[in-house]
Amino acid sequence: MTDSIAEFNQFRDEMNQLILGAGNLTVNRFFALDGKCYEAGVLGASTKEMLGLVSSLVLRCDDCITYHVIKCREAGVTKEELMEVFAVGLVVGGSIVIPHLRRAMARMEELAQDGKTG
Amino acid sequence: MTDSIAEFNQFRDEMNQLILGAGNLTVNRFFALDGKCYEAGVLGASTKEMLGLVSSLVLRCDDCITYHVIKCREAGVTKEELMEVFAVGLVVGGSIVIPHLRRAMARMEELAQDGKTG
Amino acid sequence: MTDSIAEFNQFRDEMNQLILGAGNLTVNRFFALDGKCYEAGVLGASTKEMLGLVSSLVLRCDDCITYHVIKCREAGVTKEELMEVFAVGLVVGGSIVIPHLRRAMARMEELAQDGKTG
Amino acid sequence: MTDSIAEFNQFRDEMNQLILGAGNLTVNRFFALDGKCYEAGVLGASTKEMLGLVSSLVLRCDDCITYHVIKCREAGVTKEELMEVFAVGLVVGGSIVIPHLRRAMARMEELAQDGKTG
Amino acid sequence: MTDSIAEFNQFRDEMNQLILGAGNLTVNRFFALDGKCYEAGVLGASTKEMLGLVSSLVLRCDDCITYHVIKCREAGVTKEELMEVFAVGLVVGGSIVIPHLRRAMARMEELAQDGKTG
Amino acid sequence: MTDSIAEFNQFRDEMNQLILGAGNLTVNRFFALDGKCYEAGVLGASTKEMLGLVSSLVLRCDDCITYHVIKCREAGVTKEELMEVFAVGLVVGGSIVIPHLRRAMARMEELAQDGKTG
Repeated sequence: MTDSIAEFNQFRDEMNQLILGAGNLTVNRFFALDGKCYEAGVLGASTKEMLGLVSSLVLRCDDCITYHVIKCREAGVTKEELMEVFAVGLVVGGSIVIPHLRRAMARMEELAQDGKTG
Repeated sequence: MTDSIAEFNQFRDEMNQLILGAGNLTVNRFFALDGKCYEAGVLGASTKEMLGLVSSLVLRCDDCITYHVIKCREAGVTKEELMEVFAVGLVVGGSIVIPHLRRAMARMEELAQDGKTG
Repeated sequence: MTDSIAEFNQFRDEMNQLILGAGNLTVNRFFALDGKCYEAGVLGASTKEMLGLVSSLVLRCDDCITYHVIKCREAGVTKEELMEVFAVGLVVGGSIVIPHLRRAMARMEELAQDGKTG
Repeated sequence: MTDSIAEFNQFRDEMNQLILGAGNLTVNRFFALDGKCYEAGVLGASTKEMLGLVSSLVLRCDDCITYHVIKCREAGVTKEELMEVFAVGLVVGGSIVIPHLRRAMARMEELAQDGKTG
Repeated sequence: MTDSIAEFNQFRDEMNQLILGAGNLTVNRFFALDGKCYEAGVLGASTKEMLGLVSSLVLRCDDCITYHVIKCREAGVTKEELMEVFAVGLVVGGSIVIPHLRRAMARMEELAQDGKTG
Repeated sequence: MTDSIAEFNQFRDEMNQLILGAGNLTVNRFFALDGKCYEAGVLGASTKEMLGLVSSLVLRCDDCITYHVIKCREAGVTKEELMEVFAVGLVVGGSIVIPHLRRAMARMEELAQDGKTG
């Protein structure tokens, strides 16, 4: 956990700009699609963010987990609901998920201390 | 797609019995925990089944996908909602998910023809 | 190896139609993107198909391997070149790749016997 | 579970011959290395086979699981010991491992009925 | 390798407390099960720790590798035996395992310098 | 991104020496094989490095990605070609690949600033 959420977001934004600026049509379309698929449809935005979060957990990607934890909190998902998402991810994905769960927990603490979603 | 849902369920039941009958405490507790974690809590059963489904999709396990598609349908998840779960799984997990999506689609057809969830 | 390449292609086409016909915009755009990304660009089509093949090997997806083996052969990739793609996939992905390599080999035999790419 | 252990072994042998006969030096050396690494060293052969089995379980490769279950039984690993290997694989890898555990159990039954390792 | 084993252990303990304190029954039972499954049974504790280590290697989880390397050393597994566990993990999981092997090696050095297991 | 390419290379070299010095024959032979498989054969070195890069991307290993980005650039692969390799990796592996793509992009920037491959 070497960087804060602010640093995470800054690196994310800078690199996204570099990637999109490189002008590869497939890559740019994929990024657009990635944004689109979490917009509310027949399923609400909070459900979709929880789907993104549990997928990130079982695939064990810390950056993706951080991103979806933030988005879940913004969409109104409660801490108790997040724990149930974590529970499904943990049972499906096994103990190998635990280190990522620890870092997800640290991110939730960080969000609470920032006063944004506590 | 060599076996029907009925055959899938029969093999599943027979092997579960063999596994649980082998008397390993850790294994048996894990199976109990696996059942428990999809019960309604602060999140409803249908949301939890969708979480299980998207996890199975991105981890690319056909049997798990079949199981959660059936459970989702039983919990009242509509075909249009399932397509949105598939969309998230596809974007997160990539084109490597597509063959599993095809088999999931075949399972949905099979369920519809069985008159259970069509 | 329960089905032939002809059966594989038929199931693939039928399910793709069902999926695309379900009308989920994200899913349909993803399928379009998937087709696009193997078209010749600054890299030729045969190089891109080899990239798709080695990715499928290390992610261990038989259907994807079958698809890209066929496409590689159509794009003029020789058997000796395919063996070098397999070698990279095997070293990167480890012995867990071997069962998929066996099935890839059986597909190459099947293609040769069909007189298409032998 | 469409083929018997005998059929599994026959396909395995035939494809291995095709692969090794293709004359790619890296591939052939990898196959030799794969055989070597399970030979008794400071760890005994049964321990190494159990290491191969649990790795195959958490990476979810049915053919590799079948192979190492057979090898474990030949090396004298008991059913109770195999259940403990399965327990570690299940806890580490999660419920996504369960379908593979079912097929491993079916293979153990098949071996018992063949009178080889019952 | 930004943190020491002492820092790793501190973060691990603090986050485990937060997770267990959140009061999700499934999560808490999973953690209990995770502890249980490495206790000596018909297989000894050192064998079980080696099973946990090789699983962590092929699934490529640095924190899990660090944890099981420490536990293996405490259970009396020698460096030569650890190298044989690494060899199986490397052959099964492929070259993608190598960066994790490097960090495992650095952890073994760190343990030796701490005078605990050198 | 806590360390520079120079630091990455130093850690890599030191740990490789420790690993190879430990004297495990399987491990040492694997390392030799890993070096061999990227040498030019019927496929050129640049194609093989691109195969290694896309495999590393879809398996999501930052160190392997860094290594193959450097090697690709040394073998004359252009930035535009690298973007097409990234595009295939992104479509095959999904959005879970994106954080690794960001770090790959940062490595390409670092290489350009070092004046080696800009």
